[in-house]
Amino acid sequence: MAKTKLKVIKIGGNIIDNPEKLAQFLDNLANLNSPFVLIHGGGKVATEMSKSMGIESQMIQGRRVTDEATLKIVTMVYAGWINKNIVAKLQANGVNAMGLCGPDGQIVLSKKRNPEPINYGFVGDIIEVNGEKLKVLIENGFTPIIAPITSDSEGLLLNTNADTMAQAIAIGLSPYFDVELAYCFEKPGVLMDANDDNSVILNIDSTYFQELKEKGIVSDGMIPKLENALKAIAEGVEVVKIMHADNLLNPSIGTEIRK
Amino acid sequence: MAKTKLKVIKIGGNIIDNPEKLAQFLDNLANLNSPFVLIHGGGKVATEMSKSMGIESQMIQGRRVTDEATLKIVTMVYAGWINKNIVAKLQANGVNAMGLCGPDGQIVLSKKRNPEPINYGFVGDIIEVNGEKLKVLIENGFTPIIAPITSDSEGLLLNTNADTMAQAIAIGLSPYFDVELAYCFEKPGVLMDANDDNSVILNIDSTYFQELKEKGIVSDGMIPKLENALKAIAEGVEVVKIMHADNLLNPSIGTEIRK
Repeated sequence: MAKTKLKVIKIGGNIIDNPEKLAQFLDNLANLNSPFVLIHGGGKVATEMSKSMGIESQMIQGRRVTDEATLKIVTMVYAGWINKNIVAKLQANGVNAMGLCGPDGQIVLSKKRNPEPINYGFVGDIIEVNGEKLKVLIENGFTPIIAPITSDSEGLLLNTNADTMAQAIAIGLSPYFDVELAYCFEKPGVLMDANDDNSVILNIDSTYFQELKEKGIVSDGMIPKLENALKAIAEGVEVVKIMHADNLLNPSIGTEIRK
Repeated sequence: MAKTKLKVIKIGGNIIDNPEKLAQFLDNLANLNSPFVLIHGGGKVATEMSKSMGIESQMIQGRRVTDEATLKIVTMVYAGWINKNIVAKLQANGVNAMGLCGPDGQIVLSKKRNPEPINYGFVGDIIEVNGEKLKVLIENGFTPIIAPITSDSEGLLLNTNADTMAQAIAIGLSPYFDVELAYCFEKPGVLMDANDDNSVILNIDSTYFQELKEKGIVSDGMIPKLENALKAIAEGVEVVKIMHADNLLNPSIGTEIRK
């Protein structure tokens, strides 16, 4: 029997930070006519909140360190303020949204990252996704809206990368659904020329990714995104799309990653 | 057919503010051997957070006004930090907890309180509890842990009284379960003499409540708590207990309110 189609959609900070863009995106989600799961990042709110409380962000090699004060702030902002606002707005748009993070139903279990060689603090690496529990929620008509906060087996909350969280959840749901993972961001796809939005690469597989990487066509933030995409494909996800958030209802625009 | 027993438990700020007491309480919850729903208040964290951000609490007739900045803080603290910490700790204790607030699955719908005669700001009065959706979660093995934040039909988040929220949820679940509502606080029950913890009044009904109120034996915060209890009883809840949080596993100690 063919599995039901399910979209696992990840949105980043650039949408969260822009109230009009976010409202439009949530409106589009309500018109998607397909079951979905949304994973959202954090945006600037957490940074602004830290500043107003006089907490300085510590950075190691360009990555933020999650100390205790920062963990508290990201949990409050991601799983509290942003998550519940998205859920309330989706409910007002007729979507039966339910805001969750890792510990809720223990849908995502993680482990504090080894402090060696670099101590990133309270950062969680995912060790298990409970796709069965998410499936039960989806089959009962709930639409999970997931913040990138997880917890370990001792109940310690941990900050978790949202792109990786989306990948792991898409994989965890693939035994039950025909999953499409969509990374929505501020560009129309993976670009051949970073300065030309009309240079979208339509299809990428693992061989082509190696080539693009060696030629330096993809770099920086796009490399881990594509690695997440290829891992998802290798572990059961049907297709991954990298696309502009504005194009949610025009799925033909963007980059497709398949086996 | 007899309905399944379900406890709806409300804990207040005094437990939330005390890490050892909270840990003990969560441990007791894991040993309850009965399905339950937990509603938690906020405690001092929100006040401390406001202070550290330089936001002053505005009070009218002893009640806090929820302005926009305060709404953001209570949503972050109650639905984010406190809720997710409780959920993660309960999961570590073997309880399949799921952290929710009003907009999640639209389990509680509210309406912004009329600004006349007193404008309390972003405060929500409950207009509907969706007991059916909560029932689906409970029947699928999830234990709802609920923060007192709700939303209106437009998706506006609102601060909501946790005692009233517990009462409304207990009533909303009573068509499906044999509900016991337990208000856990820092006293062993309703006291005949406020200074004597051994003067617990074991049983109260609506007639006796009027008498206690007229004689001034119950006053201040206990009056709305008892009004909530009596409303719950009048609308389908089997029994309400007002008890010390430490006595969760000794349910014989405390005040019982029945019809």
